Amino acid sequence: MLENVDLSQTIPNDEYKKSMKTLEVKLGALQRRAWELKIPIILVFEGWHASGMGEDINRFILPLDPRGFDFHTMTRPCYDDRLKPFLLRFWELIPVKGRIGIFDRSWYSRAIIELFGKEKGEKGEKALENILEEITYFERQLADDGYLILKFFLHISEKEQKERFKEIKKKDIPLILDEYEGKNGKELDFIEQYEEYLPVVEKILEKTDSPNAPWTIVEANDRNFAVLKIMVTVTHAIETSIEKITRTPGQQTIKYLDIATTNLPVLNGSTLEKTDLSKTISMEEYRESKKLYQNRLEALQYELFRKKRSVVIIFEGWDAAGKGGGIRRLVEELNPRLYRVVPVGSPNDTEKAHQYLWRFCDAIPLAGHITIFDRSWYGRVLVERVEGFCTEEEWGRAYREINEFEKILVDAGAIIFKFWLQIDKETQLERFESRRNDPEKNWKITDDDWRNRNRWNDYKVAVDEMLQKTSTTGASWIIIESRDKRYSRAKILKTVVEAIEEELKKN
Amino acid sequence: MLENVDLSQTIPNDEYKKSMKTLEVKLGALQRRAWELKIPIILVFEGWHASGMGEDINRFILPLDPRGFDFHTMTRPCYDDRLKPFLLRFWELIPVKGRIGIFDRSWYSRAIIELFGKEKGEKGEKALENILEEITYFERQLADDGYLILKFFLHISEKEQKERFKEIKKKDIPLILDEYEGKNGKELDFIEQYEEYLPVVEKILEKTDSPNAPWTIVEANDRNFAVLKIMVTVTHAIETSIEKITRTPGQQTIKYLDIATTNLPVLNGSTLEKTDLSKTISMEEYRESKKLYQNRLEALQYELFRKKRSVVIIFEGWDAAGKGGGIRRLVEELNPRLYRVVPVGSPNDTEKAHQYLWRFCDAIPLAGHITIFDRSWYGRVLVERVEGFCTEEEWGRAYREINEFEKILVDAGAIIFKFWLQIDKETQLERFESRRNDPEKNWKITDDDWRNRNRWNDYKVAVDEMLQKTSTTGASWIIIESRDKRYSRAKILKTVVEAIEEELKKN
Repeated sequence: MLENVDLSQTIPNDEYKKSMKTLEVKLGALQRRAWELKIPIILVFEGWHASGMGEDINRFILPLDPRGFDFHTMTRPCYDDRLKPFLLRFWELIPVKGRIGIFDRSWYSRAIIELFGKEKGEKGEKALENILEEITYFERQLADDGYLILKFFLHISEKEQKERFKEIKKKDIPLILDEYEGKNGKELDFIEQYEEYLPVVEKILEKTDSPNAPWTIVEANDRNFAVLKIMVTVTHAIETSIEKITRTPGQQTIKYLDIATTNLPVLNGSTLEKTDLSKTISMEEYRESKKLYQNRLEALQYELFRKKRSVVIIFEGWDAAGKGGGIRRLVEELNPRLYRVVPVGSPNDTEKAHQYLWRFCDAIPLAGHITIFDRSWYGRVLVERVEGFCTEEEWGRAYREINEFEKILVDAGAIIFKFWLQIDKETQLERFESRRNDPEKNWKITDDDWRNRNRWNDYKVAVDEMLQKTSTTGASWIIIESRDKRYSRAKILKTVVEAIEEELKKN
Repeated sequence: MLENVDLSQTIPNDEYKKSMKTLEVKLGALQRRAWELKIPIILVFEGWHASGMGEDINRFILPLDPRGFDFHTMTRPCYDDRLKPFLLRFWELIPVKGRIGIFDRSWYSRAIIELFGKEKGEKGEKALENILEEITYFERQLADDGYLILKFFLHISEKEQKERFKEIKKKDIPLILDEYEGKNGKELDFIEQYEEYLPVVEKILEKTDSPNAPWTIVEANDRNFAVLKIMVTVTHAIETSIEKITRTPGQQTIKYLDIATTNLPVLNGSTLEKTDLSKTISMEEYRESKKLYQNRLEALQYELFRKKRSVVIIFEGWDAAGKGGGIRRLVEELNPRLYRVVPVGSPNDTEKAHQYLWRFCDAIPLAGHITIFDRSWYGRVLVERVEGFCTEEEWGRAYREINEFEKILVDAGAIIFKFWLQIDKETQLERFESRRNDPEKNWKITDDDWRNRNRWNDYKVAVDEMLQKTSTTGASWIIIESRDKRYSRAKILKTVVEAIEEELKKN
């Protein structure tokens, strides 16, 4: 995409000033309108060193209302960030709907530095390849959710770059990004890298240019030209976006896409109905098994920590199926520094104002740690579907989005368990009633629980579809027969321990 | 406080189990009640290495509803944290009202490691001394705001510690906290430090034991005894806290304290009235001055970055006094990687559910960076006071709290500017009307502005009191005569540039 770019274009100062005056007013007005319409906007700035990015971005943000944008300079990740799946620290930064997120460097630069640059050669190529695929998931999911994404690459010639380096050296301007990279800003060690990185940049631009998130090459030899091109591109895109939304109110999102899940085997009939709920174990067996597996898990947590492997355990299931009790038995002998229980309820206002996977990013365990989700992102295709909290189009594409999200976790080394705790309707009623009559437990039972119970059949359809469409390699569902609580708890413990042991043997 | 502690106390297993059963149910109920009453709780756990903290905390949190607490292991700060005033990264973690924040290690351990341990000898002593003072500000401010703070020190004898180290080594359990410290968990290099640290620990416990945030020494040679003591102490304190609140509804907070500001000179009459608003400069002078100081500021930002000095610039002033225009002239030639404009509006729900300075912590600049606040924490003693958004007791103690907060910033090397942009009532009216009639600017003027204008005199009283009580060494107010916009902008630029140059000469 950089080959035939004409870098000789310039704009004289007076023309620049005149155009900017008009564009600044327009941009300000568009920003306010986008805020009213709750359009989230992501602007990514990448480019060669010394392409003038800082200055260009500053001219661009001056006319913006600072209440409406966030500016992120993507520098070296902190210790904790390194222990997380690469993409999540960017996912965490996506703007609230209606705001503009401006990325000064982004997942692209970081991928080059942290993945490609670290291990050059074939291994680096492969890591880059893989991350570019994940990036397309990420950007498509955001676009599908109504995010306007624009990516700019500030392009200058190698000759121009060399001249600018001289200037920087002469003026003794510190290299801020390099300093954050731990290079102390003292060496211009990237000077000779233009040739080396050109093919990598070309590849990235081509692989990640999509209608969801297009690249705009900005000819940046001339500052005026560059700033105006950015201004014009952004205002035009926001205008188009506003027009589209206001023309077809209520239809803000893109149409239902072909979901990748159509390739999954469609099981005959209901998985839930086939579950054998008569399984039980004796108190004695239970105690023995609990002791055995809790001890093994206690030791395993340290091995996970040493080997920097993370574990995600998802608990879904009918109300009163025994999620809480199952979780407690899992964590009883664990070190609280290494595990975390994350209960997932209805999203708050801030969470609702982001793409729906956003609120889980922070809870994803660091490498070496364990997170247990008491309910999870599967709420999208369960309660949100059944209660109509999201549109059919939204939960329809969620299967694919969730599969992609979990692939990102698995690729980063996570061991994932997804438990569905199955009971029958009669057992639930018994447990509801016993909770209601126990003064120490009646706070646990709410009107919501009774309401959900009345929609048992709707939930059953949703659960079955979920089990079928999201059982993927490395992240398949495990049904836990939970009419007998002891059986349920013992099976969970045993499953987790044995699978982790198996997995750790591999490396 | 550790001298006469009886470490021989033990509790047999069956007694422990029986007591725990009762206490667990009680703790669960108290947690729910504290949530209803919106009592925020902070539990700090400190203690000797190998005192069993992890296991004790786990037994304590098992009966808690995970929806209601946050667990923080305080490990090595990330790069950005190191560039901030020490206390702020803990301030950022205080729980929402109604939740429990559990700190596994805390500001105390970090102060020992990062401040005292780094520079032993007199310099370390002094840094520790200073931070202990700041910690008392921090804890008192939270307690005044209704936070229940309990601090536990898990105490074991040196002999017991040695034995436990042997056990840990034998079982090959990784030292999680050490690993985070960058020690790779391979060396037990703290083994010999008990004697060395004993006097430091004693000093810290004594200096920071207060009714606001008392220390409880936990005899931890016997696990059962330790866990029960923690359980009993916490349940008792929550119970007392609940009783106090329910007995005197509406009087949740402590009485108006003697505020440190009484020592400040009380000026005769109104500072505002004495301001000479007739000052003007010509267009030519303005242009020259702007160019000169913007260029100097552009160079200065890099010097600030190199010397790792941060700058906080607060803009307060009447509506339409020219805050936005002043800010724009300041940042026009700056690098967006080094500055940030933070507009402060009314707090959102999450912000309201924390102590009021919490929401500013994230915006405090890193060392080497500049933050410009368009309105600020002074809202507490201005709009919140005048409009009755907080109680008299709350804004009454805010002067002292703000002075303490700014001292923390100054101690960490921040250069602080506090500008009050002064205009007269007639000028404001003219500007309101001109905004109203300008289609490009009328979005700037809202009903709020007109309402505030009607309360001009109430605001005047509040502003004068603010100027008097919060002009402290290193952070005094500067009145900007702003009837003439050019004069105002030029004075701001000049003031900032000259003061920073002056300050940087010192080191």
